[in-house]
Amino acid sequence: MTHPLLDLAPLTAAQFAGIERRVAALLGTEQDVVIMQGEALLPLEGCIRGGARPGSTALNVVTGPYGQTFGNWLRDCGAHVVDLEIPFHTAVTADQVEQALAAHPEIDFVSLVHAEAATGNTNPVAPIGEVVRAHGALFMLDAVASVAAEPLLPDAWGVDLCVIGAQKAMGGPAGVSAVSVSERAWERISANPAAPRRSYLSLLDWKERWIDGGRTALLHAPAQLEMLALEACVERIETEGLDVVTARHASAAAATRAGVTALGGGLEPYVHEARDAAPVATTLRTPPGVDASELVAGALAADPSLPLIAGGGALSKEMIRVNHYGVDATRGVVQSSLAALGAALAETGVRVDLDAARRAVTETWR
Amino acid sequence: MTHPLLDLAPLTAAQFAGIERRVAALLGTEQDVVIMQGEALLPLEGCIRGGARPGSTALNVVTGPYGQTFGNWLRDCGAHVVDLEIPFHTAVTADQVEQALAAHPEIDFVSLVHAEAATGNTNPVAPIGEVVRAHGALFMLDAVASVAAEPLLPDAWGVDLCVIGAQKAMGGPAGVSAVSVSERAWERISANPAAPRRSYLSLLDWKERWIDGGRTALLHAPAQLEMLALEACVERIETEGLDVVTARHASAAAATRAGVTALGGGLEPYVHEARDAAPVATTLRTPPGVDASELVAGALAADPSLPLIAGGGALSKEMIRVNHYGVDATRGVVQSSLAALGAALAETGVRVDLDAARRAVTETWR
Amino acid sequence: MTHPLLDLAPLTAAQFAGIERRVAALLGTEQDVVIMQGEALLPLEGCIRGGARPGSTALNVVTGPYGQTFGNWLRDCGAHVVDLEIPFHTAVTADQVEQALAAHPEIDFVSLVHAEAATGNTNPVAPIGEVVRAHGALFMLDAVASVAAEPLLPDAWGVDLCVIGAQKAMGGPAGVSAVSVSERAWERISANPAAPRRSYLSLLDWKERWIDGGRTALLHAPAQLEMLALEACVERIETEGLDVVTARHASAAAATRAGVTALGGGLEPYVHEARDAAPVATTLRTPPGVDASELVAGALAADPSLPLIAGGGALSKEMIRVNHYGVDATRGVVQSSLAALGAALAETGVRVDLDAARRAVTETWR
Amino acid sequence: MTHPLLDLAPLTAAQFAGIERRVAALLGTEQDVVIMQGEALLPLEGCIRGGARPGSTALNVVTGPYGQTFGNWLRDCGAHVVDLEIPFHTAVTADQVEQALAAHPEIDFVSLVHAEAATGNTNPVAPIGEVVRAHGALFMLDAVASVAAEPLLPDAWGVDLCVIGAQKAMGGPAGVSAVSVSERAWERISANPAAPRRSYLSLLDWKERWIDGGRTALLHAPAQLEMLALEACVERIETEGLDVVTARHASAAAATRAGVTALGGGLEPYVHEARDAAPVATTLRTPPGVDASELVAGALAADPSLPLIAGGGALSKEMIRVNHYGVDATRGVVQSSLAALGAALAETGVRVDLDAARRAVTETWR
Repeated sequence: MTHPLLDLAPLTAAQFAGIERRVAALLGTEQDVVIMQGEALLPLEGCIRGGARPGSTALNVVTGPYGQTFGNWLRDCGAHVVDLEIPFHTAVTADQVEQALAAHPEIDFVSLVHAEAATGNTNPVAPIGEVVRAHGALFMLDAVASVAAEPLLPDAWGVDLCVIGAQKAMGGPAGVSAVSVSERAWERISANPAAPRRSYLSLLDWKERWIDGGRTALLHAPAQLEMLALEACVERIETEGLDVVTARHASAAAATRAGVTALGGGLEPYVHEARDAAPVATTLRTPPGVDASELVAGALAADPSLPLIAGGGALSKEMIRVNHYGVDATRGVVQSSLAALGAALAETGVRVDLDAARRAVTETWR
Repeated sequence: MTHPLLDLAPLTAAQFAGIERRVAALLGTEQDVVIMQGEALLPLEGCIRGGARPGSTALNVVTGPYGQTFGNWLRDCGAHVVDLEIPFHTAVTADQVEQALAAHPEIDFVSLVHAEAATGNTNPVAPIGEVVRAHGALFMLDAVASVAAEPLLPDAWGVDLCVIGAQKAMGGPAGVSAVSVSERAWERISANPAAPRRSYLSLLDWKERWIDGGRTALLHAPAQLEMLALEACVERIETEGLDVVTARHASAAAATRAGVTALGGGLEPYVHEARDAAPVATTLRTPPGVDASELVAGALAADPSLPLIAGGGALSKEMIRVNHYGVDATRGVVQSSLAALGAALAETGVRVDLDAARRAVTETWR
Repeated sequence: MTHPLLDLAPLTAAQFAGIERRVAALLGTEQDVVIMQGEALLPLEGCIRGGARPGSTALNVVTGPYGQTFGNWLRDCGAHVVDLEIPFHTAVTADQVEQALAAHPEIDFVSLVHAEAATGNTNPVAPIGEVVRAHGALFMLDAVASVAAEPLLPDAWGVDLCVIGAQKAMGGPAGVSAVSVSERAWERISANPAAPRRSYLSLLDWKERWIDGGRTALLHAPAQLEMLALEACVERIETEGLDVVTARHASAAAATRAGVTALGGGLEPYVHEARDAAPVATTLRTPPGVDASELVAGALAADPSLPLIAGGGALSKEMIRVNHYGVDATRGVVQSSLAALGAALAETGVRVDLDAARRAVTETWR
Repeated sequence: MTHPLLDLAPLTAAQFAGIERRVAALLGTEQDVVIMQGEALLPLEGCIRGGARPGSTALNVVTGPYGQTFGNWLRDCGAHVVDLEIPFHTAVTADQVEQALAAHPEIDFVSLVHAEAATGNTNPVAPIGEVVRAHGALFMLDAVASVAAEPLLPDAWGVDLCVIGAQKAMGGPAGVSAVSVSERAWERISANPAAPRRSYLSLLDWKERWIDGGRTALLHAPAQLEMLALEACVERIETEGLDVVTARHASAAAATRAGVTALGGGLEPYVHEARDAAPVATTLRTPPGVDASELVAGALAADPSLPLIAGGGALSKEMIRVNHYGVDATRGVVQSSLAALGAALAETGVRVDLDAARRAVTETWR
């Protein structure tokens, strides 16, 4: 029995290294790139368990649920954690980070989520990176929801650990992920006795046995199909042009924002300022008395394939998330999403202007 | 370099025969099924060049463009052709076929398209089959646009040559296709000195060298990947249930029809009677003064992925075709298609009721 | 740009659960099966970090390199480790395990590798399981190199944590793996405050958020392509028959052993007794004065695709490993492997009987 | 249910045209390249039915079974056929072609198979092309078994119709194939009233509706997966380098020839001169009293995956064919093939020198 996913010739170390190089080029980084054999949570956990230790003090910027996860891991490592919690309707500023660092000179680790799809905001990494660099802390960035959706320049921005996954704007697989690691980060992790070693979580294993060994022998059999899919999606981005891909996501966000405003009926962007809104997904606040989960259910009843989802946890009553990444970063998907939400809203008795929404999307799309 | 589409172990004769059996089961046929290694036009051409000859008289029912193609092939074979041309807004009836047969007792071949996606009609094969059988002619049916979208019972209906492709309602590949062949058809083709032999067009080659040889040796290397995709789509239909798949297509057609009627603005179903409308696609007539090609262009500008297309040739000004087959046979796609058409119509200054259309789709979908 | 590995519809929770059920059926287990999203080292590490803790005493049976890895993890968890080291040319016995348990009544965890491809031995799990059960310790088995190559019955044998990967005899992907977990194991891990929680290593996360949640929401996006490949290889085994697959591996081992003996020239099975030899791979000891790495290099120069490899580390001079698993568990691959080794040996001036080796393989293959 | 071979975004006309360009580059041709949606027999039949007609006289060079097929098609078209039959143990010469042309000045079509895998010979196309050009006839070449295995330069050699398939040395799919068409060939076919038009066999349809239409609309839905596989195999050849790929095939042929000679036992190359032997496959003559089919059966019993096959038809008793193309064009496969044949020969009581054969292969492989 022959099958396209079985009995492929093994991925060689040379091919694996080639995929690493293409990912590094996508990130414009000169740093080491490690492709971890699991979802992006794996390198994120590996970065924190490698970078933090008892005695560390970490500034953890919380702009969404992943920030909360990072705080838990940091505490689990014995680090003292300074949580800088930012309301979900806005983004953190470099000033806020600077003040927090000034208040806690002992901070030696900063964790930040670039864009958080779940809350729809994006943070200004460039100025934050400057501040963190000046302070001297190690800077970890979760760029899973920003890579290929908006500019991402880890080297220029002074990011020491930049984690990406391909499953959002890259339109690729979720089963492998990557992290770029600065020289400073390698030194810090190597000096940490509690850093994972001989472990699936370990970045150091890849450093010592793969990179320092000249990239000739993999640590174990890779997730070959996910690697091939990663290569294919990077090749597709190269062909379309990274700039074109990010422009498509910017248009989707701008058009969704404009369309919602034109729709009326009390639905409005959750993130107040457009500059703080993530290109990967737009979050909306429902009008008083309208339950977000019910509204989404109504819209999905009409078309279950639309990229709509109610907010998680406590936000499930008031937040709607319109995803527009990868193959969904098209005018058509934005139009259909707003039409379905508008119609579901109309069913509740609210007046909406579907035509105005549609025109606004068309005009705003660049 | 490893690739999922290269270096697969060859498809064996046993696997090939197994796929034939599954296709036969899908058609509920006891007849021989031949899987031809090309698009459905290949077996259709093979059937006509095998079944017709100088001296033949063929009744060719024309309910769309494929009927015209068949007439050309029939004439090319030297057959005398009686074209029974039916307006595209309706379907042929068994009575009409019976009258044509009565008027031309010498007719020995009847060609019919079951459902014609391009014009949106579907023909009542069961009663037509009875009439053709009574007359004694060979009966060829093009079921590419009906298989898996509506009931298809070649044996019960007396179809001698039933051609299918997987690219529409089956949600499968276009590169291979199948034909069921009755005993009578084999006899007729075998007795035709002009029937293709030792040719890519030849059904007889498959009969003599594959079927009669016990299905142990293929005629040549098959289109292996298309065969595997065919197997996969048949397996998916088995899992969902053929009845469920056809019901989904019936709902899509009914909902599109109801939605268009509710939308207003002068857009109306091209096929007058619902019973004559194909489950695979709904054709629409534009109101006077509205160019169909322009309207479709306007709707696709909003979402290029929608399954909308203007009519071909002379129909390009007045006919719009809404496809709703395979993965597009969902309520969401129907909703989005009508919303986009409605909005484009509104842009021309016509009044439409988008909300009413949306509600009609939701209510009609079973 | 369309690509077979991109833009697939997401794997649903229901499909994921269905794959779990098929894996459970393959193992004949009634226990929970968790499919971890990484290579088998991930669940192995998760089992040990979940099952061991400071205060634990673990009996770690070392019959190859994986046993050594387990010992390191156990010590890393703060457990006291009793290493039962067995020479690589033989297997552990239930008596040896029983004596070790008697000498250390405090042992509460036993780790064992079923078959170790690197050293070519296989251990008698059934009687060992009885002894461990009587003692009351938790029993973890690494069955990556035995599953589908030889009988594996975790429930009947009293295995609490049975870890498998698909990349050897199953002929499947390496990027996801599975573990069956007994009720006792869940209790033990749940009661361990040091067990990984909210971690990529965590079994408990899958228990609490996936299994106890009714298998409706995955913890994160899965390695979808690896999951589809896992499903495909299990389906292929079901079609061939698990018994047939294991018989094929048994034949490969027996034929390799017989062929080497017939070949002569001083090359001999590394594992003394056939009953201790793994069906997945046969290890050979080179004659005095013949370097194993050089001999393998000579054989691979003739055919780089042969599944031959020199022993790791200190064994690289004296041990050769002939893999014969998955698609390589065929008579042809065994013949080619022995012919290449025999020829390379002949080049060193040693007399070998290639014909006798070939005949022995043919006769021994059942 | 998600599947890697289903629901792919459709192959666009632009991608299709891009694949055509890459195939043209592989052939180094400036002529139009048409990719036909079927096995290479489809364009071969299309070329002959397009190029020949009643009144034509064709010189058909027969160096194997495909030549016989072409003769049948030519006669079927009403052409007068001059068969130039060449013994299978040699190749045709330009002199022989020149003499045939001189004897029949009316010849206006020449058909030739470049390399014929079934008989193992290859013909000197360059000088034959000169002779045919001087005569003025249309020149059709079947290069399915030579492309990527040996130099192929249709433009430089004056080939008017050059047909290739990817299933041999290209290591690609069999389900689509290509033909380069010279301006003269288009004129000739266009002027032929019997040339297939509006037919699956028609080259002209592709000319008129695809090429002349600016390559914007395909004639029908393509065999998408086969097209993607074709693109992937061409990309792989580009990466390895076409020169490297052909050198690998030349080595395989030379090594097989040398190995067989060294093996002894009466097995000898069927094609007398090395320069006439095809790089794609080596044919062997069995010694008197040894049945080729039985010998192959014996060799395959040891390893069913070896690329060995007995000659077809009357040759089944005396000819063995060793394929060595695509992924089988490796030293290892050649070694295993000769070892298995040698062993099977030894079983019949004949003395062979397996070691000498192995050494000869190793030394001859460049």
